[in-house]
Amino acid sequence: MIERLAIVGIGLLGGSVAKAARAHAVAREIVGVGRDLTRLRPALDDGTLDRAVTDVADGVRGADRIVLAAPVLANETLLAQAWRAAAAGALLTDVGSTKRGIVAAAERLAAGRADVQFVGSHPMAGSEQSGYAVARVDLFQGATVVVTPTEANDPTAVKSVGEFWAALGARVVTLDPDTHDRAVAAISHLPHMVAWALVDAVARFEPDALAIAARGFKDTTRIAASDPEVWREILMANLPAVTASVAAFREALGELERLVADGDGAALTARLARVKATRERLS
Amino acid sequence: MIERLAIVGIGLLGGSVAKAARAHAVAREIVGVGRDLTRLRPALDDGTLDRAVTDVADGVRGADRIVLAAPVLANETLLAQAWRAAAAGALLTDVGSTKRGIVAAAERLAAGRADVQFVGSHPMAGSEQSGYAVARVDLFQGATVVVTPTEANDPTAVKSVGEFWAALGARVVTLDPDTHDRAVAAISHLPHMVAWALVDAVARFEPDALAIAARGFKDTTRIAASDPEVWREILMANLPAVTASVAAFREALGELERLVADGDGAALTARLARVKATRERLS
Repeated sequence: MIERLAIVGIGLLGGSVAKAARAHAVAREIVGVGRDLTRLRPALDDGTLDRAVTDVADGVRGADRIVLAAPVLANETLLAQAWRAAAAGALLTDVGSTKRGIVAAAERLAAGRADVQFVGSHPMAGSEQSGYAVARVDLFQGATVVVTPTEANDPTAVKSVGEFWAALGARVVTLDPDTHDRAVAAISHLPHMVAWALVDAVARFEPDALAIAARGFKDTTRIAASDPEVWREILMANLPAVTASVAAFREALGELERLVADGDGAALTARLARVKATRERLS
Repeated sequence: MIERLAIVGIGLLGGSVAKAARAHAVAREIVGVGRDLTRLRPALDDGTLDRAVTDVADGVRGADRIVLAAPVLANETLLAQAWRAAAAGALLTDVGSTKRGIVAAAERLAAGRADVQFVGSHPMAGSEQSGYAVARVDLFQGATVVVTPTEANDPTAVKSVGEFWAALGARVVTLDPDTHDRAVAAISHLPHMVAWALVDAVARFEPDALAIAARGFKDTTRIAASDPEVWREILMANLPAVTASVAAFREALGELERLVADGDGAALTARLARVKATRERLS
């Protein structure tokens, strides 16, 4: 059992980590770190946090497990602060959507101080909503969490981080940070780019059409309502993989468009059937 | 009340029209026309249809209301057959996703025989599934149905078609056929193109990523599992509007990509916030 779990950032993800850790009795004490004590108040009042502080060093001091749950670029700065203040033997992880940047930062910090470890995590369980008010005790139940160890990591630390997420109900998958970043570009960042472009295009092409939009359009564009600040950081942090995935998408769309324009019904049907089969394998 | 309602095509949409018409007592008698009597059997057995036939002329003869619910190109052929066999005063409509083609066909037929009328309909209530097995009595409850009259239509006929859908629970919106076709290209055909290209691109760019796909990707690509035959027809029937909407999308995506690549965080956040606001107005 974790003696003291410190969570930096008590929003949707950090708040859900706290609630789930509390419900599954994963940690004896849970400390929340946030920029604004007023906004941490609800998590104290409902018994999710034992203590709430605004100072990172204060919050992580004495914690044996630290979870960074701020937006992705902020986590890199917080990592350095937490690294300096952490107790010997502390194990750090995060919930960020991109991993190359923070893993590289951790490797630089480990060169200076080796008695603290970082193993990256990415729970595939976000939402277009944000904030502690939408945090859920079951957010990770059945969700996939990607853990991204490197060769520099102690296998025991990697195992502990995997067990932590498993205890919160998640299915744990291991990927190296580069593969992870390409994979999330493909199945998360690219779909966001596409959903934003879709809403934007319709608003300009035929704005009145939005009034008759049905479930298909709403589902396809739900993630276009995601938090702009959070996503600005994610897209910038994962620029090379995002650019490559958009290029792959543009090519696939161009091929499809040519099949439609060519009027070759059989070829078009075959392509749509192949894609349908791929999609259906996802369940 | 309709004396005899004939529905040509007893799949998801036609079957749901039959079930809803039965439940709301909109017609005294409901006749189903299909290509295969075995597949019409469940709709007879559960009491949805009073009679099932495979011959179009036989099925529509004596009906005062005829609904064409086959795939969109088939409806144009069926319209001519139904027009010849229909009783004087019969009112025809359809459930097709594109309207310019069938409305033009009806205008040609009206030149030969003027005692039958067609008013186009498009219920915005499809699904990626098809067949009578997924037909639902409440498919049109709260759904939007676009009715697409032209100047050639008798206002009484337009009113009757609107009242028919309203009686099945739908919200009725009127658009001219051209505006309708651009609007559905924008909010239905384009999202399908994008969803297919997205699944196809990910399968080629990083196939292993599909294994960690979460709700965002699944929602965004749900419609990529739509029926290939049905969609081949829709895309080909609405080619000009589909092409124009894809061009608008390509432009929006290109702009977004440049905002990400330029590293101008403020401009990117502003764009994402504007799109988010548009999407949120859809509820």
